Amino acid sequence: MAQRVYYFDYAAATPIDRRVLAVMEPYFSEKFYNPSSPYAQAVEVRREYESAKQQIARSIGATADELVMTAGATESINLAIGGYGGHKVTTTIDHASVKRAVSGGSDYTHVQVDERGRVDPEQVRAAIRPDTQLVSIALANHEIGTIQPVREIGRIVNDMRQQRKSNGDLTPLVLHCDASQGFGLLDMHVGRLGIDLLTLNAAKIYGPKQVGLLWVRPGVQVTPTLVGGGQESGLRSGTENVAGVIGFAEAVRIADKKRHIESKEIGALRDTLELAILAELPNAVVSGHRKYRLANFCHVSFPSIDAERLVFMLERDGVMVATGSACAANSGTRSEVLTGIGLDDETADGSIRLTLGRDTTKEEVLYAVERIIVAVRAESQRTGVRV
Amino acid sequence: MAQRVYYFDYAAATPIDRRVLAVMEPYFSEKFYNPSSPYAQAVEVRREYESAKQQIARSIGATADELVMTAGATESINLAIGGYGGHKVTTTIDHASVKRAVSGGSDYTHVQVDERGRVDPEQVRAAIRPDTQLVSIALANHEIGTIQPVREIGRIVNDMRQQRKSNGDLTPLVLHCDASQGFGLLDMHVGRLGIDLLTLNAAKIYGPKQVGLLWVRPGVQVTPTLVGGGQESGLRSGTENVAGVIGFAEAVRIADKKRHIESKEIGALRDTLELAILAELPNAVVSGHRKYRLANFCHVSFPSIDAERLVFMLERDGVMVATGSACAANSGTRSEVLTGIGLDDETADGSIRLTLGRDTTKEEVLYAVERIIVAVRAESQRTGVRV
Repeated sequence: MAQRVYYFDYAAATPIDRRVLAVMEPYFSEKFYNPSSPYAQAVEVRREYESAKQQIARSIGATADELVMTAGATESINLAIGGYGGHKVTTTIDHASVKRAVSGGSDYTHVQVDERGRVDPEQVRAAIRPDTQLVSIALANHEIGTIQPVREIGRIVNDMRQQRKSNGDLTPLVLHCDASQGFGLLDMHVGRLGIDLLTLNAAKIYGPKQVGLLWVRPGVQVTPTLVGGGQESGLRSGTENVAGVIGFAEAVRIADKKRHIESKEIGALRDTLELAILAELPNAVVSGHRKYRLANFCHVSFPSIDAERLVFMLERDGVMVATGSACAANSGTRSEVLTGIGLDDETADGSIRLTLGRDTTKEEVLYAVERIIVAVRAESQRTGVRV
Repeated sequence: MAQRVYYFDYAAATPIDRRVLAVMEPYFSEKFYNPSSPYAQAVEVRREYESAKQQIARSIGATADELVMTAGATESINLAIGGYGGHKVTTTIDHASVKRAVSGGSDYTHVQVDERGRVDPEQVRAAIRPDTQLVSIALANHEIGTIQPVREIGRIVNDMRQQRKSNGDLTPLVLHCDASQGFGLLDMHVGRLGIDLLTLNAAKIYGPKQVGLLWVRPGVQVTPTLVGGGQESGLRSGTENVAGVIGFAEAVRIADKKRHIESKEIGALRDTLELAILAELPNAVVSGHRKYRLANFCHVSFPSIDAERLVFMLERDGVMVATGSACAANSGTRSEVLTGIGLDDETADGSIRLTLGRDTTKEEVLYAVERIIVAVRAESQRTGVRV
């Protein structure tokens, strides 16, 4: 019999919701037509594709023609950032794809964050130089869940852009927000966020993998990463991922309906998890902001305990947790996020990340707590480290 | 009751084979783990992903570590070509994605083809200059199905590279082959083709859409289009499309098993289709090479007849055919392929493309022939054009 699994890694991957899969299925083998084909059946597929884009757009306060559908967050990020030259700004704890895209081929500044992972908008302002063209800030951090003051940064960027304009300075200045983490839990209204470019990812909200989008504010320039047939208004060539985008729209619909209640329920479960661990293991260190933090994130460190051993011990009990960021294929290096918030090496190396999801139950949380306490205490006994 | 459909546009899109979908399904909602996650279940997913890559690699005479999995042919093509500077060579009739990638940012030559769409290897040789870094030739044309002498071109490129080497010239010279069309019908062994880079697309062989690969000969340089988490040996960041790649492998397995027999059967049906049309409509013009042509392609023109009207008339009868290339989202412009083979405008504008597939039956072919003859004759009567 297969072992029961207790999944606490929703930030790394979410299962596709059955309802999402159900709306995708007709497009696999029946309505499989190329949306650029001329006959009525293909034109209908095109219409359904556009209508799915519209539904996604509405959910973030945008219109369908402002969306460029991509093969996921990494592509969206590269598309958003790749075309800008000059100087660029991001934080020390942004995702590898943002940091690498920002550092590629031009000058950049990594703004420091505080020990809770939050960036000070005034430090972002100070980092913007006359030749700065792009600022990229994640809405929420992928390892510790800290939510950034994106609206404040949006106002700063907008002010500085207006200043440039009134000085006759034509250097562009745009704000890109990678909101892959937090989508489904936070408000994504682009007008309220006050941003110019937004990256979203279906795979984080119970939608299909390899489906994402870049929202582009009208008038903002992006340079295509992929050239060819001219799909997505020429910004992203390649036959459209019809099933994927239709699934994305359904995932958004479900997330929108559930966002408020889910966010509360998950937050309560996360607090239960965290408090129970801290009650039994008082030396544990919880990272991330107390107030501005994703409801489903619990990043906890056991100083001088080997997190990789913990992961393997928990896995034997069916409990799946992450060490560091699962996105980094080149594992084994120390997390730049944890270094960025000033965790010492002993604490960083004892870190596990638990992320909860739509299907997480209280029973699962209590089981995970129990197994974590047992595992950490066993390691404590083995090594003599106090926990 | 839904109208019965007669699909003759397999070059634009293929339905996902039921067996392909069956192997993909477990990865949607059960084995949905991020292959970079540390626990055993995710490690197993990683292993299955790598094993699927291995299966695909074996089929083209390569190894898994030489494959970069992408979101389809357009991305593969951009990845193959984008990193090369200097001068580049392709043909006048290559796909828009190849032509645009080749012309992006550097000098290039479009080699002419003959009236059957075939490029002369000696003309490719003549186009290669001392600063040429890349040659890109489609294995088979996407509109008329003409198969190119890729092996001969491979020998030429290899000779010239050896010459450069022995002259101490370090300028790279590589041959990229876009084999999106023809995959499943032709031999794709990279050693026998004698190429350096190969683009393949799952969506053309009854696999999932938005899944492709670039094969990279060991030692050949490519520059990542997407940077980030460092997946695919750092050449293509982004969480792996596990379900897509597993489906791709199954599509390859089925295609390999069926290739010889399918190619023959489909070729016989195509010949039936073509001869029946020509017998009744003697002014019709068939394009593409008589001998070197994909078995499933029939490109036929009715001079001075409006192909768009034909498409709509046929569509009413349930027969789906293409005009020009369905890949070009910016329709309305005249096909560069048809201009490239020297078709006059009246002939080009009267062109339809029928492409057959695994599920095409003789009955479907006979029905399509009948409806095409009726439609063309009706247009002939309406306009007075002889057909």
